[in-house]
Amino acid sequence: MTIEVVSEVISHGGMQGVYRHKSTACGCDMTFAVFVPPQAANAPCPVLWYLSGLTCTHANVMEKGEYRRAAADYGLIIVCPDTSPRGDNIHDIADDWQIGTGAGFYIDATEAPWAPHYSMETYIRDELPEIVFANFPAAPDRQSIFGHSMGGHGALTLALKQPDRFRSVSAFAPIVNPMAAEWARRAFGAYLGDDETIWRHHDTCVLIDDGARVSEILVDQGDADPFLEAGLMPDRLEAACKCAGIPLTLRMQPGYDHSYFFISTFMADHIAWHAERLRAP
Amino acid sequence: MTIEVVSEVISHGGMQGVYRHKSTACGCDMTFAVFVPPQAANAPCPVLWYLSGLTCTHANVMEKGEYRRAAADYGLIIVCPDTSPRGDNIHDIADDWQIGTGAGFYIDATEAPWAPHYSMETYIRDELPEIVFANFPAAPDRQSIFGHSMGGHGALTLALKQPDRFRSVSAFAPIVNPMAAEWARRAFGAYLGDDETIWRHHDTCVLIDDGARVSEILVDQGDADPFLEAGLMPDRLEAACKCAGIPLTLRMQPGYDHSYFFISTFMADHIAWHAERLRAP
Repeated sequence: MTIEVVSEVISHGGMQGVYRHKSTACGCDMTFAVFVPPQAANAPCPVLWYLSGLTCTHANVMEKGEYRRAAADYGLIIVCPDTSPRGDNIHDIADDWQIGTGAGFYIDATEAPWAPHYSMETYIRDELPEIVFANFPAAPDRQSIFGHSMGGHGALTLALKQPDRFRSVSAFAPIVNPMAAEWARRAFGAYLGDDETIWRHHDTCVLIDDGARVSEILVDQGDADPFLEAGLMPDRLEAACKCAGIPLTLRMQPGYDHSYFFISTFMADHIAWHAERLRAP
Repeated sequence: MTIEVVSEVISHGGMQGVYRHKSTACGCDMTFAVFVPPQAANAPCPVLWYLSGLTCTHANVMEKGEYRRAAADYGLIIVCPDTSPRGDNIHDIADDWQIGTGAGFYIDATEAPWAPHYSMETYIRDELPEIVFANFPAAPDRQSIFGHSMGGHGALTLALKQPDRFRSVSAFAPIVNPMAAEWARRAFGAYLGDDETIWRHHDTCVLIDDGARVSEILVDQGDADPFLEAGLMPDRLEAACKCAGIPLTLRMQPGYDHSYFFISTFMADHIAWHAERLRAP
C-alpha cells in the first residue's frame, strides 16, 4: 500500500496533494487527490469523499471545484478519486465519452473486455479507503460522500449500500435513475450485460424502491442543465424519496448549468452541510 | 466596438462571460473574460482588473482563481484580459514561454517583428476599457487593478502610470524589477530594443525611483516560490517603496509556491481590500 507523491502544494493553509498507487482492484496505476486541512496537525479529521462526473479525472474538481477554503474552515479532508481505470493497456472506445475511460460509473464490470480493470465500486468502497486511512490523518468513523453527475450517482448508490459508513450524502446534478437514462444504459449494458435485474443494484431510485435507506439527501440541480430531462430527472429521486420517507432537500437553481461554474457556486454550502453532520458527537 | 459572446454561464449569482473582439491595438482577435456580479442588475458596479502571468490566457484565473464568490459578495466586476496577441499570423518563438504568445508583458513593442501586434499596454490602458465600459454595467470612476507575476508587473506599472484611474493596486508574486530579471530582460530586449533607458518606463522599482507614486500597495508572495530569488525579488520593491514613502504591505506567505493554489488562497483577501477602497465615497 505504498503511494507515490505526484505533487504536494500548500493551499488555503492545508496541503493539496496528488498521489499514485498500484491498484489491485483496477489492475493499473490509479491517481487520486487529497486535501488535508490545517486542523489535521492536531488530530485526525473527518473525510468527505467527492466523486466526479463523466470525462473527469481527479483534477477537475481539484482545480475548479473551489472546495479548499470551506474544507480548511471546517477541518475536513477531501478525497477526489479518478473516474475509471486508465492506461495504454486498459480497454476503451475511442471518442466515446460515455463508456470506458472517464466513465467507470462506480460499478464493477462483469463482462468482457471490461471486467479485468473496470472495478470502480470495489476500488472506491474497499481499496482506496484502506490507502487513505493508512496514509493520511483521517478518522474512519467520520466519513461522508458527495459527487457530481455520474459521481452523484456514485455517491448516492454507495451511501445507500453503506449507510453505516457515511454520515451524510449529497450531490450536484446527480444521475439518479441510470436504468432510465440512455447514456448510462449503454455503459450498464457494456459493463454488466443484458440482465437488468443486476443493474438494479446500481440505480439510486431503484435501490430506494427496493428498501435501501439513508437518513437524508441534499441535491442541487441547475434548471438550465442541458442533461436535465434526458439524463438526470430529479423528479424521479423526489418521487422515490417521498415514497420511502427519506427527507430530500432538492434545490432547483435557476439559470445554472452542469459545469463547475455551477458546482463551485454551491460547494461551500455542501461542505458546511456535511461538516455539521461530520462534527456531531 | 462590437463584441462576440463566446460563452456566458451563471455562477455565484452573477454571469461569467467570455468575449471576443477585433482589436485595433493588437491587430487580431482578442478574447477576455468578465464576471458581472448580481448587484449590477441595480446599478453600475466598480471594476477590478486582473492581469495574468506568463503562459496564461483569460481562462486560467477564470477557472482556478476562485474570485467569483468574493466578487459577488462585494459587487465587483472582474475583467480578465489575455496576456498577448495570438493567432496563426502573429509572430512567436516556438517552445519559448518567456517571449511571444502568452508573454506580452503589458508593453508596446517597438521592434520588428513584434511591433505590429504586441501592443498590450495600449490594449489594456485604452482599447479594452472602452469596450468594457461600452458593453458592461461598469463604473469608470471606480477602477482598481491586480495581477499575478508578469500580471503583477502589469498591474503595478499601469497603476503607477495612471494613478488617477486606479483607486488601488495589489499583486500576487509580482515581477517588480524586470530590468534585473533574466526572463523579463530577454523579452524587453526583443520588444523594446537595446536602449535600456526606454525599459525604465516599464519597471515598477525604476518607475518609483523616478518619481511615480500610488497611494499604497498590497503584495502577497510565497516563500517557496521557485522564482523568488531570480525573477521576483520583493525586497527590491520593499526598498523602493520605503525610499519613496509608499506604504507597502508585503506579506511573505510561508510554504506557498507560484501557482493558482497560492493565488486562490489569498484571492478573497485581495478582493476585500480592493472593495473597501472601491466602495469608499
